[in-house]
Amino acid sequence: MSASSIDLAVIPGDGIGPEVIAEAVKVLEKAVAAEGVELKQTHYKLGAEHWLETGETLPDEVLADLRTRDAILFGAVGAAPGDTRIPSGIIEREMLLKLRFSLDHYVNLRPSRLYGTVGSPLANPGTIDFIVVREGTEGPYVGNGGSLRAGTPHEVATEVSLNTAHGVERVVRDAFRRASARERKHVTLVHKHNVLVYAGHLWKRTVEAVAAEFPEVTHDYLHVDAATIFMVTDPSRFDVIVTDNLFGDILTDLAAAITGGIGLAASGNINMDRTAPSMFEPVHGSAPDIAGQGKADPTAAILSAALLLDHLGFTAASRRIEAAVVADVEKRDGGARSTSAIGDAIAAGL
Amino acid sequence: MSASSIDLAVIPGDGIGPEVIAEAVKVLEKAVAAEGVELKQTHYKLGAEHWLETGETLPDEVLADLRTRDAILFGAVGAAPGDTRIPSGIIEREMLLKLRFSLDHYVNLRPSRLYGTVGSPLANPGTIDFIVVREGTEGPYVGNGGSLRAGTPHEVATEVSLNTAHGVERVVRDAFRRASARERKHVTLVHKHNVLVYAGHLWKRTVEAVAAEFPEVTHDYLHVDAATIFMVTDPSRFDVIVTDNLFGDILTDLAAAITGGIGLAASGNINMDRTAPSMFEPVHGSAPDIAGQGKADPTAAILSAALLLDHLGFTAASRRIEAAVVADVEKRDGGARSTSAIGDAIAAGL
Ligand SMILES: CC(C)[C@H](C(=O)O)[C@@H](O)C(=O)O
Ligand SMILES: CC(C)[C@H](C(=O)O)[C@@H](O)C(=O)O
Repeated sequence: MSASSIDLAVIPGDGIGPEVIAEAVKVLEKAVAAEGVELKQTHYKLGAEHWLETGETLPDEVLADLRTRDAILFGAVGAAPGDTRIPSGIIEREMLLKLRFSLDHYVNLRPSRLYGTVGSPLANPGTIDFIVVREGTEGPYVGNGGSLRAGTPHEVATEVSLNTAHGVERVVRDAFRRASARERKHVTLVHKHNVLVYAGHLWKRTVEAVAAEFPEVTHDYLHVDAATIFMVTDPSRFDVIVTDNLFGDILTDLAAAITGGIGLAASGNINMDRTAPSMFEPVHGSAPDIAGQGKADPTAAILSAALLLDHLGFTAASRRIEAAVVADVEKRDGGARSTSAIGDAIAAGL
Repeated sequence: MSASSIDLAVIPGDGIGPEVIAEAVKVLEKAVAAEGVELKQTHYKLGAEHWLETGETLPDEVLADLRTRDAILFGAVGAAPGDTRIPSGIIEREMLLKLRFSLDHYVNLRPSRLYGTVGSPLANPGTIDFIVVREGTEGPYVGNGGSLRAGTPHEVATEVSLNTAHGVERVVRDAFRRASARERKHVTLVHKHNVLVYAGHLWKRTVEAVAAEFPEVTHDYLHVDAATIFMVTDPSRFDVIVTDNLFGDILTDLAAAITGGIGLAASGNINMDRTAPSMFEPVHGSAPDIAGQGKADPTAAILSAALLLDHLGFTAASRRIEAAVVADVEKRDGGARSTSAIGDAIAAGL
């Protein structure tokens, strides 16, 4: 990467992925052009459709090629539910999770913010402005399971959650760093250490140890079940949540729901050591039911592009996208606009 | 058990446990007395306080004695957060979970219902009336984990989720049976089979197989992250949810929150084969911060007693308690009443 160009990998994916990514690229191009930065794009055909055509999920050469880029903008992948031609989970694991794991995206960053007038399902949402720092490279997501006597009455199926001091410490430290730069400077660890004792205690001990390096940051702990209660009764209490891969998956969908839906929820899969490109994607899926109809909200993809710019150091351009999104979102009255109309409006607002 | 008496084990536990259990027993006694049934009670001192005094969690003799009872009414256990005298999780695992596992409480039944005027945090909750059938004896709760090189930078901590055809099938069949007896006759399996492939596919295959025995029951599937979204955007869609031990833990706290809080959420830990007594407990914890002040809401404990009667076949008495609770809850205006005032009002309403 040079300051005057960005070498971007684009993976539009399936369903509404290509539609929302087209708008994100539109906004991204305009935002960086204003700073004299060229956006060099390489598009990759990957996902369920591509698998149906070729049987490929993520070939090694493609992964190697992706490694040479500055960052990845990702749409969404996944076949229609009930499409029995695709073994369930194969695209998720052999493509999306393979990217996150291979490129060591250990910080899965998911900000949650309620914008003025956007509809929260909560009667009294209050001010919602927190980030979830979800671990992205271990935990129950490692694919370490198996089944014995599958399909018989004696079947035993296991799933192993793997947690390492290395993996937990780096993401916990990232959460404290981010908290330290925020106004409220508060970290909440979410786990279930009264049941998942070994993993839970590794997380707790690590938080205690890292907290000592950040005397300006306060911290507390919530069991994951209690955290979901506060998410709907008192979401204002959260500033920075740090949690494992699975709890983070669950909490961030709930967080998206209370802040107006996954049409707005952005995420970054970040390699903070920059040993490989980071990947930015909307939290939503491929929504095959509305694909190709111009009905998808590209806002989450556009906000993901803003996170991408921020990660690459184009802070001002990132802020301008965010501001344009906020301005657009605050004007929304529930009326339907097409995917490209929303993209155009946000681009115009830059 | 004879039809004219119930041999009840009572475990009040810690914090607000004794207070809410006193009200539940009060209501229970009155409800069965009206049918000429005697309530024989044996109280057991167990929990965090008891551990501090004696170092005992659940001695074998006590467990053996509990096995001879018809049913167990359980309050809540757990020390104050931050009480460092008690190793975290020890009471939960060596007492509460030990009871659930030893007595083979494979159906953790948690009904969720929004009563007329009770405050849901949702702006438009609609009609909420579903039950969660949470697996209670396996999954990530088996305590099968460990740590290697604990406390060093090379620590690895694991947690193993164990799932068996036997364990999954019996709870799935229970869910379909319950659905079959309900008006909407619909089962939703909640899991995360696109990531937790082995366990997830065992659950999915089992649901497909059992569904074939219940042609009158429809069913669908949701990933756990998506389920939390629907819980706040469209809870009316749920009728019977069947899910594993950990997802069930998370979803039922969220379900309690959207139906007016854990002050109302009842549960049964049920051994459907009746090889050991079942145990009924409010979903809430011991709430040490408000213990001994008469501030706790005994409604969840009272509704748990109603589930207990239903399980023992005292259907009419169970319904009368439920009706008295509903009548009381629908009159609530947010004004504070003491624990015993609420218990008295519900008892009077029988
Ligand atoms: C598609 C799935 C594998 C993925 C996850 O569980 O991480 C998604 O739910 C997400 O949150 O990005
Ligand atoms: C106390 C704890 C072990 C328990 C659980 O996780 O099952 C509680 O949260 C519950 O839901 O009954």
